[in-house]
Amino acid sequence: MGRGTIALLTKEIPADKRILITFGGGSVKKNGVYDQVTEALKNHNTVEFWGIEPNPSIETLRKAIELGKQEKTNFLLAVGGGSVADGTKLIAAGLLYKGDAWDLVKLRKPITDTVPMATVMTLPATGTEMNRNAVISRYETKEKYGIAANYPVFSILDPETTFSLPQNQIAYGIVDTFVHIMEQYLTVTGVSRPMDRWAEGLLQTLVEIAPKIIDNPTDYNLMSDYMLSSTLALNGFIALGGVPQDWATHQIGHELTALHGLAHGHSLAIVLPGTMNVLRAKKGDKIIQYGERIWKIKEGNRNERIGKTIIKTNEFFRSLGLTTHLSEEGIGYETVNEIERRFNERKVAFGENANVTGAVAKLILQDRL
Amino acid sequence: MGRGTIALLTKEIPADKRILITFGGGSVKKNGVYDQVTEALKNHNTVEFWGIEPNPSIETLRKAIELGKQEKTNFLLAVGGGSVADGTKLIAAGLLYKGDAWDLVKLRKPITDTVPMATVMTLPATGTEMNRNAVISRYETKEKYGIAANYPVFSILDPETTFSLPQNQIAYGIVDTFVHIMEQYLTVTGVSRPMDRWAEGLLQTLVEIAPKIIDNPTDYNLMSDYMLSSTLALNGFIALGGVPQDWATHQIGHELTALHGLAHGHSLAIVLPGTMNVLRAKKGDKIIQYGERIWKIKEGNRNERIGKTIIKTNEFFRSLGLTTHLSEEGIGYETVNEIERRFNERKVAFGENANVTGAVAKLILQDRL
Repeated sequence: MGRGTIALLTKEIPADKRILITFGGGSVKKNGVYDQVTEALKNHNTVEFWGIEPNPSIETLRKAIELGKQEKTNFLLAVGGGSVADGTKLIAAGLLYKGDAWDLVKLRKPITDTVPMATVMTLPATGTEMNRNAVISRYETKEKYGIAANYPVFSILDPETTFSLPQNQIAYGIVDTFVHIMEQYLTVTGVSRPMDRWAEGLLQTLVEIAPKIIDNPTDYNLMSDYMLSSTLALNGFIALGGVPQDWATHQIGHELTALHGLAHGHSLAIVLPGTMNVLRAKKGDKIIQYGERIWKIKEGNRNERIGKTIIKTNEFFRSLGLTTHLSEEGIGYETVNEIERRFNERKVAFGENANVTGAVAKLILQDRL
Repeated sequence: MGRGTIALLTKEIPADKRILITFGGGSVKKNGVYDQVTEALKNHNTVEFWGIEPNPSIETLRKAIELGKQEKTNFLLAVGGGSVADGTKLIAAGLLYKGDAWDLVKLRKPITDTVPMATVMTLPATGTEMNRNAVISRYETKEKYGIAANYPVFSILDPETTFSLPQNQIAYGIVDTFVHIMEQYLTVTGVSRPMDRWAEGLLQTLVEIAPKIIDNPTDYNLMSDYMLSSTLALNGFIALGGVPQDWATHQIGHELTALHGLAHGHSLAIVLPGTMNVLRAKKGDKIIQYGERIWKIKEGNRNERIGKTIIKTNEFFRSLGLTTHLSEEGIGYETVNEIERRFNERKVAFGENANVTGAVAKLILQDRL
């Protein structure tokens, strides 16, 4: 992590590797990242694959896997945001998998052999640079699933690469980071003080820097704090100490993205206040702790404090310029019912108490209409 | 980490290894840890070495190295506190070093080859279980130095092993953990918000749990929080984000231990308030931030706030039952002058500003008479 670290690619990737470099839509050609990468790898053997889209699709990734096999690549370098990196994780597995790579996603076939991959991250959000998660979509059937894939062998984070990010990407990234922390934090109290303080410290950081970043997205220190927070929000540190995890908000958000193309972070901003409201009986103690430590809410009875805390959380997301209700995005009952139907069909029950069934997801979404 | 994890030794250490198990003075025979270790390794090939003392000495470690060579051991298991683990790190290097292992300490010869080692930690304090540090003493010449050695391949932390610790060991361990954080935190402001919040979260945890632990040292959750905090205080996490580090307090403390046999944590409780006081010009901003966030000190002018913060820190150490002044331990000017002389002779200048010379160390120690 740091200024100028893309140049480290030269020595970090062994000289004898045949590298498939994967990219998104082309923003890296405008902000100078592409030039830095190609300069660093000018004496390496490289092939490029362009066009991994936001919410990377199996349809696109199959083409990359085909190219990688054809070119006999034995190292992958993802250059871009979380979608490029996630997609590349599936390519890394797909290159050594005999069947269709969608099996690895839909059927959750265990991913054992992978081609080594690294990342140059240009969008702080998903934390994929330091974990083994990947989220892959299938456009044809409007499906989107998270899987446990492979760790990058290294990741490069130069905060300067974020200076040209559009404001909505920054807003989505801040929400994504915030909700990653909340999914690991907003469960039960009393499990681990050090880990609670760690999660709260990251939340406090985001609340403090978010308005400053919106006003000044080229401040190196601010963007460093944001970039480091994004990585640390989902690299396993918060879960040290055996902290229970939720992830229901993500699962419901994935459906909104799959059905309506909502940006991932945006979908989370819509869903989280509903999860907090509907699950207040189980999560109440932790919501109160969160409200007190992050938003200084100390007055009122239990339900009032929970209510104020949810309002503050909702306002924080809106302060980033995001809508936080389904109706604001033209999404209505039809989608609520479809998500309930899908959860029921899959017989899933998400959350730390395994109680977010189709029926509960419906309550959460109704709360956000 | 967790209850019953010592049993994992059976599968964590390859069956074909010849293991040298290192111990301290014998407390593990009273608290059941020895029985758990021998039960787990009953089908392994083991040799025991007993008697690694607090502030492990090269004199003792030479004997362990001799035994290890004689027995052709190719795996080391340290069972005990930080001293046993630190000593075992030097044994791990000494087994493959041709000369006298003291060269590795005094001459700081780079440690390249080591026999793999693991730890079973029974005293949360030094963090050695997840870093490559070791501190080794030479009794003959009253010297004590820290070195960069090797990482354990794994460490086992069962909070129940701490239930029988004497109160002074717990007090020393809490101070040691606290000062490890401070050495990485109390430098300059504005380097990294996430890392500042992380350090503060660990400090808050210690301040909250310390009085509870003193009253109830067999509370599993409390001891888990303490044990995890000790590991996280010195495993490199706080220093992520390029945080500058101090360590002058440790260097001065090491001399007090070398000259007078003060327990390591105790030496730090004596020195730290002096470091804060004498270096208040450079460290003032961070001392004020620390005072506000850990001790809620918000009133008064700059110097008053710094003063109150130092008093609070001193009182915290005293609340653990420790003395915090040299005179209380019968240590006077002679030692102050000897430490100044040693620092001058070695031409050292410690601290994040490399300004803690012999003369400054003398000021710090005079402040603690």
